[in-house]
Amino acid sequence: MQTKYEKAILEILQDYQAHKLTETEAVASVKALNVLDLGFATLDQSRSLRQGFPEVVYCAGKTIEQVVLIMEKLLEQHDNVLGTRATAAMYAAVKAKVPDAVYDEMARMIMVERQPLPQDADRVIAVVTAGTSDIPVAEEAALTAAIMGNKVQRIYDVGVAGLNRLLARVEDLRKANVIIVIAGMEGALASVVGGLVAKPVLAVPTSVGYGANFQGMSALLGMLNSCSGVAVVNIDNGFGAGRIASIINHLR
Amino acid sequence: MQTKYEKAILEILQDYQAHKLTETEAVASVKALNVLDLGFATLDQSRSLRQGFPEVVYCAGKTIEQVVLIMEKLLEQHDNVLGTRATAAMYAAVKAKVPDAVYDEMARMIMVERQPLPQDADRVIAVVTAGTSDIPVAEEAALTAAIMGNKVQRIYDVGVAGLNRLLARVEDLRKANVIIVIAGMEGALASVVGGLVAKPVLAVPTSVGYGANFQGMSALLGMLNSCSGVAVVNIDNGFGAGRIASIINHLR
Amino acid sequence: MQTKYEKAILEILQDYQAHKLTETEAVASVKALNVLDLGFATLDQSRSLRQGFPEVVYCAGKTIEQVVLIMEKLLEQHDNVLGTRATAAMYAAVKAKVPDAVYDEMARMIMVERQPLPQDADRVIAVVTAGTSDIPVAEEAALTAAIMGNKVQRIYDVGVAGLNRLLARVEDLRKANVIIVIAGMEGALASVVGGLVAKPVLAVPTSVGYGANFQGMSALLGMLNSCSGVAVVNIDNGFGAGRIASIINHLR
Amino acid sequence: MQTKYEKAILEILQDYQAHKLTETEAVASVKALNVLDLGFATLDQSRSLRQGFPEVVYCAGKTIEQVVLIMEKLLEQHDNVLGTRATAAMYAAVKAKVPDAVYDEMARMIMVERQPLPQDADRVIAVVTAGTSDIPVAEEAALTAAIMGNKVQRIYDVGVAGLNRLLARVEDLRKANVIIVIAGMEGALASVVGGLVAKPVLAVPTSVGYGANFQGMSALLGMLNSCSGVAVVNIDNGFGAGRIASIINHLR
Amino acid sequence: MQTKYEKAILEILQDYQAHKLTETEAVASVKALNVLDLGFATLDQSRSLRQGFPEVVYCAGKTIEQVVLIMEKLLEQHDNVLGTRATAAMYAAVKAKVPDAVYDEMARMIMVERQPLPQDADRVIAVVTAGTSDIPVAEEAALTAAIMGNKVQRIYDVGVAGLNRLLARVEDLRKANVIIVIAGMEGALASVVGGLVAKPVLAVPTSVGYGANFQGMSALLGMLNSCSGVAVVNIDNGFGAGRIASIINHLR
Amino acid sequence: MQTKYEKAILEILQDYQAHKLTETEAVASVKALNVLDLGFATLDQSRSLRQGFPEVVYCAGKTIEQVVLIMEKLLEQHDNVLGTRATAAMYAAVKAKVPDAVYDEMARMIMVERQPLPQDADRVIAVVTAGTSDIPVAEEAALTAAIMGNKVQRIYDVGVAGLNRLLARVEDLRKANVIIVIAGMEGALASVVGGLVAKPVLAVPTSVGYGANFQGMSALLGMLNSCSGVAVVNIDNGFGAGRIASIINHLR
Amino acid sequence: MQTKYEKAILEILQDYQAHKLTETEAVASVKALNVLDLGFATLDQSRSLRQGFPEVVYCAGKTIEQVVLIMEKLLEQHDNVLGTRATAAMYAAVKAKVPDAVYDEMARMIMVERQPLPQDADRVIAVVTAGTSDIPVAEEAALTAAIMGNKVQRIYDVGVAGLNRLLARVEDLRKANVIIVIAGMEGALASVVGGLVAKPVLAVPTSVGYGANFQGMSALLGMLNSCSGVAVVNIDNGFGAGRIASIINHLR
Amino acid sequence: MQTKYEKAILEILQDYQAHKLTETEAVASVKALNVLDLGFATLDQSRSLRQGFPEVVYCAGKTIEQVVLIMEKLLEQHDNVLGTRATAAMYAAVKAKVPDAVYDEMARMIMVERQPLPQDADRVIAVVTAGTSDIPVAEEAALTAAIMGNKVQRIYDVGVAGLNRLLARVEDLRKANVIIVIAGMEGALASVVGGLVAKPVLAVPTSVGYGANFQGMSALLGMLNSCSGVAVVNIDNGFGAGRIASIINHLR
Repeated sequence: MQTKYEKAILEILQDYQAHKLTETEAVASVKALNVLDLGFATLDQSRSLRQGFPEVVYCAGKTIEQVVLIMEKLLEQHDNVLGTRATAAMYAAVKAKVPDAVYDEMARMIMVERQPLPQDADRVIAVVTAGTSDIPVAEEAALTAAIMGNKVQRIYDVGVAGLNRLLARVEDLRKANVIIVIAGMEGALASVVGGLVAKPVLAVPTSVGYGANFQGMSALLGMLNSCSGVAVVNIDNGFGAGRIASIINHLR
Repeated sequence: MQTKYEKAILEILQDYQAHKLTETEAVASVKALNVLDLGFATLDQSRSLRQGFPEVVYCAGKTIEQVVLIMEKLLEQHDNVLGTRATAAMYAAVKAKVPDAVYDEMARMIMVERQPLPQDADRVIAVVTAGTSDIPVAEEAALTAAIMGNKVQRIYDVGVAGLNRLLARVEDLRKANVIIVIAGMEGALASVVGGLVAKPVLAVPTSVGYGANFQGMSALLGMLNSCSGVAVVNIDNGFGAGRIASIINHLR
Repeated sequence: MQTKYEKAILEILQDYQAHKLTETEAVASVKALNVLDLGFATLDQSRSLRQGFPEVVYCAGKTIEQVVLIMEKLLEQHDNVLGTRATAAMYAAVKAKVPDAVYDEMARMIMVERQPLPQDADRVIAVVTAGTSDIPVAEEAALTAAIMGNKVQRIYDVGVAGLNRLLARVEDLRKANVIIVIAGMEGALASVVGGLVAKPVLAVPTSVGYGANFQGMSALLGMLNSCSGVAVVNIDNGFGAGRIASIINHLR
Repeated sequence: MQTKYEKAILEILQDYQAHKLTETEAVASVKALNVLDLGFATLDQSRSLRQGFPEVVYCAGKTIEQVVLIMEKLLEQHDNVLGTRATAAMYAAVKAKVPDAVYDEMARMIMVERQPLPQDADRVIAVVTAGTSDIPVAEEAALTAAIMGNKVQRIYDVGVAGLNRLLARVEDLRKANVIIVIAGMEGALASVVGGLVAKPVLAVPTSVGYGANFQGMSALLGMLNSCSGVAVVNIDNGFGAGRIASIINHLR
Repeated sequence: MQTKYEKAILEILQDYQAHKLTETEAVASVKALNVLDLGFATLDQSRSLRQGFPEVVYCAGKTIEQVVLIMEKLLEQHDNVLGTRATAAMYAAVKAKVPDAVYDEMARMIMVERQPLPQDADRVIAVVTAGTSDIPVAEEAALTAAIMGNKVQRIYDVGVAGLNRLLARVEDLRKANVIIVIAGMEGALASVVGGLVAKPVLAVPTSVGYGANFQGMSALLGMLNSCSGVAVVNIDNGFGAGRIASIINHLR
Repeated sequence: MQTKYEKAILEILQDYQAHKLTETEAVASVKALNVLDLGFATLDQSRSLRQGFPEVVYCAGKTIEQVVLIMEKLLEQHDNVLGTRATAAMYAAVKAKVPDAVYDEMARMIMVERQPLPQDADRVIAVVTAGTSDIPVAEEAALTAAIMGNKVQRIYDVGVAGLNRLLARVEDLRKANVIIVIAGMEGALASVVGGLVAKPVLAVPTSVGYGANFQGMSALLGMLNSCSGVAVVNIDNGFGAGRIASIINHLR
Repeated sequence: MQTKYEKAILEILQDYQAHKLTETEAVASVKALNVLDLGFATLDQSRSLRQGFPEVVYCAGKTIEQVVLIMEKLLEQHDNVLGTRATAAMYAAVKAKVPDAVYDEMARMIMVERQPLPQDADRVIAVVTAGTSDIPVAEEAALTAAIMGNKVQRIYDVGVAGLNRLLARVEDLRKANVIIVIAGMEGALASVVGGLVAKPVLAVPTSVGYGANFQGMSALLGMLNSCSGVAVVNIDNGFGAGRIASIINHLR
Repeated sequence: MQTKYEKAILEILQDYQAHKLTETEAVASVKALNVLDLGFATLDQSRSLRQGFPEVVYCAGKTIEQVVLIMEKLLEQHDNVLGTRATAAMYAAVKAKVPDAVYDEMARMIMVERQPLPQDADRVIAVVTAGTSDIPVAEEAALTAAIMGNKVQRIYDVGVAGLNRLLARVEDLRKANVIIVIAGMEGALASVVGGLVAKPVLAVPTSVGYGANFQGMSALLGMLNSCSGVAVVNIDNGFGAGRIASIINHLR
């Protein structure tokens, strides 16, 4: 399957071979394809070649106009585009220009998926949460993994305060190829899951909690010190976990 | 006294003995009673068996719809149900479905109490605050202890800046079976009370204060380092203190 | 059973009634019994009346001479005396003056136990550790609880990385009247135990670990944020946990 | 290839089938194989079944006697055994009992490798450091990965202050299947490597540095916030990185 | 070129020489020129003599009335005046009194520039950002440097996640005389740029990011620990970086 | 001069002597005067005897109703009453009941001053700020000191960035009896003033600043570490500084 | 009473008046008296004029040679000289050159007191500690206050865990003119003392404690947040407290 | 003046031009000159081209053997070589191989200076310290700047507690081209100096101090928040300040 971006490169090469482009023109065309300078943003178009998925737009801290323009530019070369930490207002503005854009309110993500990537049903990424309040982060992880071409299984609200809830799902955990554990408060779920399986466990601390939780610090430190050996991403970083899980899941 | 949940289990067992249920059906029925998977939440129904009170709903971070649905599901099996950190809007939505739900605005709690648990008048839990601003946390503790079947005495605004206020209440403190001390700022009240009594003292730091208080950090550290040996819960965690006090108070 | 200290008070009262002491003399005698000013230390002799066990000597930061002198003075009025965080050198000096003093090197405690307090075999305090490295703190807790008149059961090295180790001991945990959970690193064991039992759980974070453990901070925050509702004492404070567990265990 | 532990289980099963063991005896035998209670330690013998490598001994905080005893017990059932954070004195004591134990002073590891696991030469784990001072942590990671059956390539001292050093090794990085990046100070190397490759990157912050480094905090925070999306383990946790990399590298 | 303030001093001196002012009057006049006491503010009018640019108004925490009054007073003696961290409401009020005031919404700056300072085209200050969200801070730096008489080149969104974006601009970086690097998250861009050039690099951490970013702490610590040796200013302090860059750029 | 509260005590004593009150009644009356239990607040009426000024109402965290009621109760016994951290809404409600209450919006204080205390003109308390943004805290200190009977001199916006501003006021500083220095950002003004005078200097860090200021932490740490030896109060605690300065200023 | 330093200035003035010195020579002589540049140290000789006591030598971080030389130079102009945080080795070296130097090992102070300052017996500075381990800091405060001309009363080991110990000393506290409270752990003693007296209370947090004490952080935060309004100095800064108390105690 | 390294490059180019080297050989030779892989270290030989001085060896965390080998390798291509944070033992080993190496014990630096760089006497770098204890860091800065070809003036122990000491040196400060301010404790000296001059000020916080100094944190935060706008380097990083000052001082 060929992406838009790959097709564009191919066209340049063919034109060059057919002498429609000089060497100088061809180099300039490829360079323009790779790094697109918008003034306020420098799009790294070659990332999809290097990393298998185009640059993802982190929308927080950008103006609505910037988000719309970046999305449009990315769509000129790519079929599937993702925006994270997007507000409803950003989505409305994108939607006006890109009618097939969809929005997940809980995960705060804008998605355009014109050529869905194939999913390998034998390699499931399990997304597990300790509580209901962790679900927004979990959905960010799950949707990211899905759009990047992975089958995802959700196992929500199985925190360690009621261990029987987790033990009831051990079979599902053991069948997964990669596991993302999402927990706030003390983050103990990551340690317990890490001890039950022999697959890579990615832990996402969330800012769920209060007081000595310090906006996710307690879960973060807990996971970093886990005696079960899990790998950790930033607090509330569902996207990062989904993306790394996808990279691991695509190793052959 | 038999809870709803215990009755349901009994019924299944009787049906099984009476050959109305096969073994497989009976096991499935008990399992369904114990862990109820709502997708976004996995209710641990067996907790009331294990810990004497059904799962309490921590409402913060949940949607209004989720809170209502969880409350309804819990009430199918339990007589008394508690929701903490609930907003007025959550309560309004619950009230529409559960007319006998009540709300304490200061403590931010939704309570349904259909079969009040008996209270032992000889075993009082004293709830003590350093200042007036600590009362919301104190009420969360007091109401939690009460609904879990404990007699509660409130002693408010007796911080150490005016020691005579506290000394005037020493007799009350000494008569209590368990004492919850709630204080912000430097949290010194816990140390002083801990030195005056021979009963278990649970200390709750609050985020009351400003500046180098760091949202309750100063009271938390003070209480953890108390030379009087008190046990500490999370900042502003009135519920936790009330629940632990109840467990201690029910030891025989 | 009457302690030395109680006998001394009784004698004064009897002498007063028998007109061997004037009122002024009697008051002075009682006062001298209660607060003993050594210049560098003010011994609170009445604590055993108020809290059931004489003042315990926190030896860290005291000179060897101070430790010896305080121990001797306490032994003039009490049968059982405890010194915590004591070095071997402190013990050697105490031993020279108090031949029946014993020392536990791992727990760093000096103990004189001339009239062992009775233990109620039906009310066991379980002392549970996540790892082997947590044992010094656990022994401080266990020995403290024992000398204060409690039966203690040790359950060591059952951290959550190998959950089967813990599950194998659930029955022991459920039989205990009070449970002390001692863990470093992420401290997840406290949350898991808290979810399995309906008894008071006291959590002791330890400084075991490295890196983002920050000398016990990770375990401390984890335990404070535990979704299972446990009560927490200071990092490495085995003594405090043992003492509070004892107070709870003696409630009737 | 069958491990000692698997053979032991098989023997029990065969004895049971041959009626040499009763059902009760067989169950007890398997249980004893799985969890070995040494009093101060509870060995989780079944971990090699669950996670592909026996429990690794974290030696810090254990006495020399404990380390020796645990190593001996593990070797009764396993061929390859690993001890981390071990002192030279611990090694000397182990060596006296286990003559084929070897020690890597820089990585502080004791290793017994009686049946080396096969390594897949096409799936290399690259271990990359920013500086020379990061090498002890890197060696812990590299030796862990190697003993767990992985081919390892070391790329040391290629930090971003001299970017040409790193760019000269890009091909090596791109050929690797999993990459471990080890850096202290600001930890920027992880971000740069993460941006260059499409393989999983595990980042290990080290405590190398001084001042506002805060014992590795600066590198830890830098890596957690990396815009390149890397997964992070605890400060100086070379072992954890090596183990997780191994798990990922063995996915099929 | 003579500033208003210098002219005012000259006038006093001339009046004094011409015997229009007594010595006492002249001293008082100069003193009044130098320190202007507004009650709520003490303007340091001599700063332009000492440091080449009049006192800059830090508007945050001041009332609108105070901002307007200070701006007016400064304009009585100076041609170019700058207000930082100004709200739109502050600008509206200033504009009503000072019609030629302009406002940059992104940089939150009010500027009056009546006698633009000359810029040396051979000494460019490069302002470089890691991402689009860092631009508000970058604009504060760029506008500050420009109004203080420096030619500025903007290079935005070239963070290390896509190193090719940065490498494409190395020539621009090497031509600059002073470089300001502005980055949030892990701040790695400062280290990479610092390793590529031999010119002074000023690093500005921004609060862009979330979670373990801790409002810019991660970028701050990263930059302070940079192995490339950069000098750092406060989080989000674009103004400070612009001003120091200007001082360095004017050294002869 | 006799306060209302002193008169009330006298009346009770006279009534008792005149046999209008029994001993029991007199004790109860005094007790009621001293500690007034409002349920949500326990007013320490005897504080004016012990500390020279009635209890001051810290309004933050109290409801409007509570503030009004406490103010009314205090005014029954005292002539001068102070409320700090009060909102305009609180003041409106107090004003409705206590028409002579006045409000200082900048200092957020409600004051009733019916019998102004005498001020000693020879013992001035100087209140010094580094910047204009520190004035709200300074006014809290100045108004507190004034109502407690002290002459106050304000010296505002003389921070160390323009040392000439401060040096111009050295005489004023040296004439003061007690000096309060209020500064945010790095808080250096306290050190400089402390080095210039031989009078007690009270330092108040403010939360003015941004970034690595961490809500006043930088100024707080700076002042605590001052090589000039100043005494420090909590961040933004103008009231505390004013009160302590008053106590020092009244020493004879 | 005239100090050495005052005599030296007088001599210069007299020589100048007597025309033994030119104006230039006189100015140079005074300047040399005031600031003595030793290369590694710039002695501020005029401090005794400005602040009533010569510069005190903070010995930590200085070499032994530097300490000796500074002490000798100070003694050329002053009668009483103080060195803090001095090691025994530093003292030995000083003693060799200054035979009347004395050393207090607990307080780590070197003192030369050739002309003791008068003490006013009616103005006592009370130095109060919570525990025995706080005594070294207390002695630093007490000895500093004494050598600066103040009568000192020591009240040691009266922490709040045994409140009766403190209440027994209330009369002593109330008679003092200034009170220094020294406490580690949670520092609650400062709050309690502050509530009992109407005199200035200076609080010194100590690093006594462990775990969540964080080297004195808990006591520091507790004291800064004290609801009793005390003024705080740096952790373990007995010297600072003694010096400030002396300044306050000398106000007339 | 031509460095060794430049000569080596030239030779390769000449050999290539003279056909003594093939193209492939020439490229390999240059590459080998630029990046020298020692296994444990990758020397960036081209840094002297890029940044005007060869790579400086940060000795902390390296073994003695590594330090010696790196120094020797660098000296093969460079005339002047610097090692920082070196122990006396490291120096002894280097000295054995490099007899002209010298060591500064206070600054902990090993220096080989075979071809001293010229210093411009009109462009002085002033190195200023607040106290005597800051001198080791100051010497690291001063020696670094000197060996990199700058004239240095030392101004030591002029902290703000005795402002007259600093004011006496204002002329020296104003004459300097770049100023390095080194201070521990509260770091206020940087702010004061920054307000007095119009030249670039580099601030170096030191770990001098105790208690709430937190190993230099207080000075670091103070300098970052300086209202005078200074640029800051890491705690105790004298080397970094000297190097950046040198870069600034060489701008033309």
